[in-house]
Amino acid sequence: MDQPALRQLLEDLRGGLLEVDEAVERLRRLPFADLGDARVDHHRALRQRQAEAVYGPGKTPDQCRRIVAELLAEPAGPPVVLTRARADQVEAALAANPGGQVTASGELATVVWRPAPPRPGRVLVVTAGTADLPVADECLAVLSGLGFAPRRLVDCGVAGLHRLLADLDEVLEADCCVVVAGMEGALASVVGGLTPAPVVAVPTSVGYGSSFAGLTALLAMLSSCAAGVSVVGIDNGFGAACAVGRLLR
Amino acid sequence: MDQPALRQLLEDLRGGLLEVDEAVERLRRLPFADLGDARVDHHRALRQRQAEAVYGPGKTPDQCRRIVAELLAEPAGPPVVLTRARADQVEAALAANPGGQVTASGELATVVWRPAPPRPGRVLVVTAGTADLPVADECLAVLSGLGFAPRRLVDCGVAGLHRLLADLDEVLEADCCVVVAGMEGALASVVGGLTPAPVVAVPTSVGYGSSFAGLTALLAMLSSCAAGVSVVGIDNGFGAACAVGRLLR
Amino acid sequence: MDQPALRQLLEDLRGGLLEVDEAVERLRRLPFADLGDARVDHHRALRQRQAEAVYGPGKTPDQCRRIVAELLAEPAGPPVVLTRARADQVEAALAANPGGQVTASGELATVVWRPAPPRPGRVLVVTAGTADLPVADECLAVLSGLGFAPRRLVDCGVAGLHRLLADLDEVLEADCCVVVAGMEGALASVVGGLTPAPVVAVPTSVGYGSSFAGLTALLAMLSSCAAGVSVVGIDNGFGAACAVGRLLR
Amino acid sequence: MDQPALRQLLEDLRGGLLEVDEAVERLRRLPFADLGDARVDHHRALRQRQAEAVYGPGKTPDQCRRIVAELLAEPAGPPVVLTRARADQVEAALAANPGGQVTASGELATVVWRPAPPRPGRVLVVTAGTADLPVADECLAVLSGLGFAPRRLVDCGVAGLHRLLADLDEVLEADCCVVVAGMEGALASVVGGLTPAPVVAVPTSVGYGSSFAGLTALLAMLSSCAAGVSVVGIDNGFGAACAVGRLLR
Amino acid sequence: MDQPALRQLLEDLRGGLLEVDEAVERLRRLPFADLGDARVDHHRALRQRQAEAVYGPGKTPDQCRRIVAELLAEPAGPPVVLTRARADQVEAALAANPGGQVTASGELATVVWRPAPPRPGRVLVVTAGTADLPVADECLAVLSGLGFAPRRLVDCGVAGLHRLLADLDEVLEADCCVVVAGMEGALASVVGGLTPAPVVAVPTSVGYGSSFAGLTALLAMLSSCAAGVSVVGIDNGFGAACAVGRLLR
Amino acid sequence: MDQPALRQLLEDLRGGLLEVDEAVERLRRLPFADLGDARVDHHRALRQRQAEAVYGPGKTPDQCRRIVAELLAEPAGPPVVLTRARADQVEAALAANPGGQVTASGELATVVWRPAPPRPGRVLVVTAGTADLPVADECLAVLSGLGFAPRRLVDCGVAGLHRLLADLDEVLEADCCVVVAGMEGALASVVGGLTPAPVVAVPTSVGYGSSFAGLTALLAMLSSCAAGVSVVGIDNGFGAACAVGRLLR
Amino acid sequence: MDQPALRQLLEDLRGGLLEVDEAVERLRRLPFADLGDARVDHHRALRQRQAEAVYGPGKTPDQCRRIVAELLAEPAGPPVVLTRARADQVEAALAANPGGQVTASGELATVVWRPAPPRPGRVLVVTAGTADLPVADECLAVLSGLGFAPRRLVDCGVAGLHRLLADLDEVLEADCCVVVAGMEGALASVVGGLTPAPVVAVPTSVGYGSSFAGLTALLAMLSSCAAGVSVVGIDNGFGAACAVGRLLR
Amino acid sequence: MDQPALRQLLEDLRGGLLEVDEAVERLRRLPFADLGDARVDHHRALRQRQAEAVYGPGKTPDQCRRIVAELLAEPAGPPVVLTRARADQVEAALAANPGGQVTASGELATVVWRPAPPRPGRVLVVTAGTADLPVADECLAVLSGLGFAPRRLVDCGVAGLHRLLADLDEVLEADCCVVVAGMEGALASVVGGLTPAPVVAVPTSVGYGSSFAGLTALLAMLSSCAAGVSVVGIDNGFGAACAVGRLLR
Repeated sequence: MDQPALRQLLEDLRGGLLEVDEAVERLRRLPFADLGDARVDHHRALRQRQAEAVYGPGKTPDQCRRIVAELLAEPAGPPVVLTRARADQVEAALAANPGGQVTASGELATVVWRPAPPRPGRVLVVTAGTADLPVADECLAVLSGLGFAPRRLVDCGVAGLHRLLADLDEVLEADCCVVVAGMEGALASVVGGLTPAPVVAVPTSVGYGSSFAGLTALLAMLSSCAAGVSVVGIDNGFGAACAVGRLLR
Repeated sequence: MDQPALRQLLEDLRGGLLEVDEAVERLRRLPFADLGDARVDHHRALRQRQAEAVYGPGKTPDQCRRIVAELLAEPAGPPVVLTRARADQVEAALAANPGGQVTASGELATVVWRPAPPRPGRVLVVTAGTADLPVADECLAVLSGLGFAPRRLVDCGVAGLHRLLADLDEVLEADCCVVVAGMEGALASVVGGLTPAPVVAVPTSVGYGSSFAGLTALLAMLSSCAAGVSVVGIDNGFGAACAVGRLLR
Repeated sequence: MDQPALRQLLEDLRGGLLEVDEAVERLRRLPFADLGDARVDHHRALRQRQAEAVYGPGKTPDQCRRIVAELLAEPAGPPVVLTRARADQVEAALAANPGGQVTASGELATVVWRPAPPRPGRVLVVTAGTADLPVADECLAVLSGLGFAPRRLVDCGVAGLHRLLADLDEVLEADCCVVVAGMEGALASVVGGLTPAPVVAVPTSVGYGSSFAGLTALLAMLSSCAAGVSVVGIDNGFGAACAVGRLLR
Repeated sequence: MDQPALRQLLEDLRGGLLEVDEAVERLRRLPFADLGDARVDHHRALRQRQAEAVYGPGKTPDQCRRIVAELLAEPAGPPVVLTRARADQVEAALAANPGGQVTASGELATVVWRPAPPRPGRVLVVTAGTADLPVADECLAVLSGLGFAPRRLVDCGVAGLHRLLADLDEVLEADCCVVVAGMEGALASVVGGLTPAPVVAVPTSVGYGSSFAGLTALLAMLSSCAAGVSVVGIDNGFGAACAVGRLLR
Repeated sequence: MDQPALRQLLEDLRGGLLEVDEAVERLRRLPFADLGDARVDHHRALRQRQAEAVYGPGKTPDQCRRIVAELLAEPAGPPVVLTRARADQVEAALAANPGGQVTASGELATVVWRPAPPRPGRVLVVTAGTADLPVADECLAVLSGLGFAPRRLVDCGVAGLHRLLADLDEVLEADCCVVVAGMEGALASVVGGLTPAPVVAVPTSVGYGSSFAGLTALLAMLSSCAAGVSVVGIDNGFGAACAVGRLLR
Repeated sequence: MDQPALRQLLEDLRGGLLEVDEAVERLRRLPFADLGDARVDHHRALRQRQAEAVYGPGKTPDQCRRIVAELLAEPAGPPVVLTRARADQVEAALAANPGGQVTASGELATVVWRPAPPRPGRVLVVTAGTADLPVADECLAVLSGLGFAPRRLVDCGVAGLHRLLADLDEVLEADCCVVVAGMEGALASVVGGLTPAPVVAVPTSVGYGSSFAGLTALLAMLSSCAAGVSVVGIDNGFGAACAVGRLLR
Repeated sequence: MDQPALRQLLEDLRGGLLEVDEAVERLRRLPFADLGDARVDHHRALRQRQAEAVYGPGKTPDQCRRIVAELLAEPAGPPVVLTRARADQVEAALAANPGGQVTASGELATVVWRPAPPRPGRVLVVTAGTADLPVADECLAVLSGLGFAPRRLVDCGVAGLHRLLADLDEVLEADCCVVVAGMEGALASVVGGLTPAPVVAVPTSVGYGSSFAGLTALLAMLSSCAAGVSVVGIDNGFGAACAVGRLLR
Repeated sequence: MDQPALRQLLEDLRGGLLEVDEAVERLRRLPFADLGDARVDHHRALRQRQAEAVYGPGKTPDQCRRIVAELLAEPAGPPVVLTRARADQVEAALAANPGGQVTASGELATVVWRPAPPRPGRVLVVTAGTADLPVADECLAVLSGLGFAPRRLVDCGVAGLHRLLADLDEVLEADCCVVVAGMEGALASVVGGLTPAPVVAVPTSVGYGSSFAGLTALLAMLSSCAAGVSVVGIDNGFGAACAVGRLLR
């Protein structure tokens, strides 16, 4: 039940075309029957700087194509992002939905359609090693899609602290830092200790066997001795970008 | 080397009391030799709204007392918080350091000395069940110490969605939501889906055996389908409050 | 907003005391603003054979007392159950809320107030060993509170198959079997292979070190080669009883 | 020993062709010697609405073909289901055993031969995301094979609650809900809180790294705060369908 | 149905007191109805050298007392063993059931009643460190109860190989070796490499944190490079003794 | 140093060709310097019924070929087994070392050269499902290589107990049972409860996601309520055969 | 068999008092029969700077007393250390073995008897937080017992990098650094990146729930991006000291 | 700010071209602004015997080529190592950067450019089985690159102790032992018990399922009963070589 329908119902009631009992009954179910539409409208307005994401793995190229098209069909919607997509998924999605901005990194790509207008906020994405770049690049692509102009610092692993400290000004000036690190994930603690700004940590599945596909970095970041560092899931560059989108409204 | 010492060195140089070569040598080591003091000053200015925490478990009452006193000795420092403290630790710390504000919840207490002045930002702490209250209360106590006036919604577990939806306005108006939940931790996803604001999720070690002391809620929150929810460690109400302190500078 | 308030609003509208625009505005928020009350009514009617549970661990005796009282205050409510309660919790809760039926097993007790009227359905609770009895007894107590007259078979571990097969008739005649087992949890598979009825498996934290506090039984039951066995959490006798309550409506 | 043989033995005894001692001896071993046949008959009668499953992974196309043929050879048997089959397995099995109904979803297919006659019971399969569809489709295919006419609701993840609430009537009218969800698996708790009917939760191996191939959803569902939700193994759509088959006899 | 009852049935049939149809019906259920008794007799005869165990943890002293008494009530039964018993359990069980042989080791005791007559077989129990003794002693006590005269070698950890090699003759002459080790559990591999006899490995929960309560030793023993070493559960000295009882029939 | 060399040394000493000091020096290092050779002889004599195994995974075809050749080069050595070999490994090894007996099962094969002469002992290998056959077949191939004439019972999963009980005589007559099972691994407990003979359990990596690649079956077997069941590593059919070789010397 | 005995045997042989055959037989077993004694002598000489440790947990005070006495009985032996001892264990051990040096830290103590003479090597023990002190103190006590004069830096957690950098000279001058850290264990990587000297990392069981009793720090240290950092077990300050003892021979 | 810039600043100050206040301000930031360069110089001098590693997995051949070139561009730098490289990575890196020394083992290769000059120190790399060779070979290649002339002992698994003891002299003479072992990793304890020298243990991901991709060996090595054994990450031969580089400066 959308607002016109609701208005009609109330006018029918006022005009005597509807009994109070019947109106009560129909309205009693309103919360649920119409919640969908109502929420969608309200919700989207509230969230319009967030992105609608299509997660590539496990989808056919055709599914990617259709879902992206569906999301773009709604005029004035939020940015649409295809994440962790293989080449054939990217190709199919772009053929049917031209205009997407592709960021390829490693074997996976991120595509952004309908980026949001520019918005303020200095976001810095810091990575520990080059192997963390695919995750950082997903994050950067989505941040751009959300309207930010993020900067990135690469190869700042804590075993060579000087590399991070050399760019300390960048760290100190950022309104929000995303730290992308695999292995022992210590960079999140170090950055968290340097800046009073929000730090969103992204563990990556990078490293020898004892990294356990990101579990080690994940646990380390959650146990960070730098108070107030918060963490998203393993390799979830998209989620980190969305967390930033929430922080810097 | 603090600023007066640095000034003296430079004035000695300018006054001809020091050779350039010697000054170069002394200054070349400066980054490390004096980094401590220099960093402390700068750091503290930057972080002055954060809290210095004393983590109770594993410390003797006397250690609690002494560390709190040491932190309070520095005038104009940040708030000091004693977390997860047993009764004997609280007693010892308060006897020597009067004026602490005690928040007792369950078997543990949080004590805050020298709270920060009031600061803006509507923070909402939502809990899934009454058993999550000790963690939420630690978070609330620290938030208050940081100068916020946080509100709390209790008992909003997703099995009774109406309880949360009844207070939807509070959720929608908050500048930041902290979600404290054990068991399956689903509340973080639901709140994250309702609000565009930052959501900091705190998994708690509450629940039957399959909760695995918070691991289940932790993993669930990290895997949240609500994009941009970020997570701190298990039962870490203090960390969540600090994350909020970073977000709402 | 409850039904009388809704009726008043609509009568005001019909009587011209309220403009359509204002009514639309107030009703548009109804799903959320009043959802709570509305849901509660409807919900409770639908769920009235389920139990409201108070989970003992982590609560003070006083909290147990007050929450039970609150739940009993609502006339015609569902059964109220205090689970996994220590002696002091039971005492406090019973002192203020007389009439509870206590089932003590091992070091923990279950208390049921306001049991549901008798309902049909033959429920059989089968246990693998005597150490599983506390969990089975919690389940049996809640089943009784829900109105069932459950039966129990004890000590039917699969290492002595004859003990179970001796009571095969009971198994075959049951409308639903709850299997409570620790160690390797194999009983769930065996019972699941014998009966076509629903089987709810409850892993328990019973056994030597390799049982890993119920994890072994949990995983084994989830991997059961008897198709269609479903599982609740470790030691969660309460949950199993509620699952039965859902199955045998 | 089947019934005719048993009858013959007894008639021989009654007719004096057999001594009591010899009959005792032969009958004393009867439980074991003949248990197989006896059980098979009885068992199958009891379970005739369940399905015989052939689990595809690890089998050669030829093995799939032969096992399906063997199961179909027994006249009046239960439905036969080939699950998680690759294209070459499906092809081989269908070539030799025509008439199977193929449900392909993602890279795997489910084939059902000899479906059971229609049976009552409204079963609703709810999925959290599109990536959960292959598991849901396996479940739906087996449910159809068991004689149900299941309905499905897709893309009801809890981050957009309105999508589920929009179809609340379907949820409330179902005799049984199967919830298929990966990531944090929170949908099971939300559905469990909305309906008093049985809820069978199926965790899926969908999600970023922190989903740990379904472990996160599995643990979350087992720890559900909605009492009485029961769970089957990861990605086990077949098992969920069989659980429904048990519930709705 | 025991043999006399079966004989009576058959004689009734032969005597015309029972119809064939009725006898068929009663006998058709026999496998299950009587399986219990039949199995018990046969089973016990077959297993008479094994022990009936009462696992102490989680039982009240009174339960220990009653279960032991019940097991001893059956004349000519197998040995009865109370394992991992606390002092109050031992006291209660012995008071009501005199004659038990107590082996106390660490904080737990093993009590054996009605030991089996001596049987051949040289069993050697080798331990890695003194902290493994409580588990080894449980094993030794049960082995004695089963009729063996086991020997023990203590403190043979692989970090001091010479200690084990000094007693190589004992190892080489044993018909079966039980290896009890915590920490890294390497002793099982070394003993397994020295002797061609069966080696039963018992991981213990001994060691610093990285031993993870026996998990490390358990996994190491299961991964032993000495082919043919087999393993029982963590700290399960009782199980190892029973495994030996099976091996040396 | 072998026995002839030792004898020569001693005769040289006795004959005055060697000084005592020099003999002491040479003999003092004997344990280590010559231990290798000495141990090999002695060892092999002691272990001559065991097999030398070449574990296929991770080796090149050429490595397989060479190692097998090396092992066969020693006349009168024990059986040589190539386990878990791919087709190219088998081919390379057989081309250079003809006469090997190939057992192919699933995608991997076992090859046995120089089998041991027949030896007594009735060994029964019981499997829970057809997917467990590759592991069981590796075990059977190695058992044959060790000189046994093992029998096998397939598809005896505990969900259809009658299938196992139908062959109860085989179980009861076996001198040793190997139980090969994935999923919940319950078959080991059931067989362990039926027979007093040694039971060696082999967990397999068979099953849906909750089987966790054999971990579930492994833990379940280690936690077996049938006392005295012992366990080897996941999918380790070779190890189980060697354990039997030790038991039935 | 020690050297005099060996010499006697050989002289007997040379003198005709012993036949060659008998000598062969006695010597054939020598590698094993005498290996023990021979190894002990040699071994101890080689290892004389290491310590003999008595691990307190799980031992009775009397066992502590006796084992320490036994180790001290051998004149000129290595240092003897009682680790992780409770007050009653310390008391018992000291009463019977006076002269031990007690280091109490937290609830556990380390006692060293017969310390080694001073040896060169600058060892630095760095800790992340005050809660790590008990483990660091065990390490320091054992290092002192081994003859070192270790220094310690406390409270150098990476969240406040300046604290560590302020003492950079100490780090750079050390011949070996032991890093003791719980939580995320990042300090090991940072120290490893600063110094080219050996770094021995000790994870501690310090931290909120996500530290998982040291597992997080353990994994993080093993995954360190600072190449060449090596790790000992959780809370194993004793092991770290011994590792240093090996490094700085 | 490098030294010339610092000197200029100071000379400007001395020459009156710069005010003290301004100099203070610029120097106050010096620690960070220049830390990078300063640290690099100092750092590299300190670490010049270590290697710069390029970790192959996850990098494109082109990335490998470029990073190696970049590292080699700096004259007089440390050795450069490409680890765990696939054939196409090796080819690309060598084509652009000739002169690299390739060590291929299994499917991966290690390439070393610009090896360090010979340095003293006897390093022994001991492996448990042939499947551990790829990891050992990576370690050996890097050790050679660091200037050592390492030796290797293969196939010394503890199940055949004599193989290790036969080469005891090599073990006893080594200044440092690297132990490379999968499965149960027991070799580290045995070697650690034989030698007083430093032992660096490398767990490998070799073995049947219960090895859990190296976790078993990792935990076993960390729990070693040979005090002072230290451990690097799973399969991390590179890290072990670097640890040796630190030990034997």
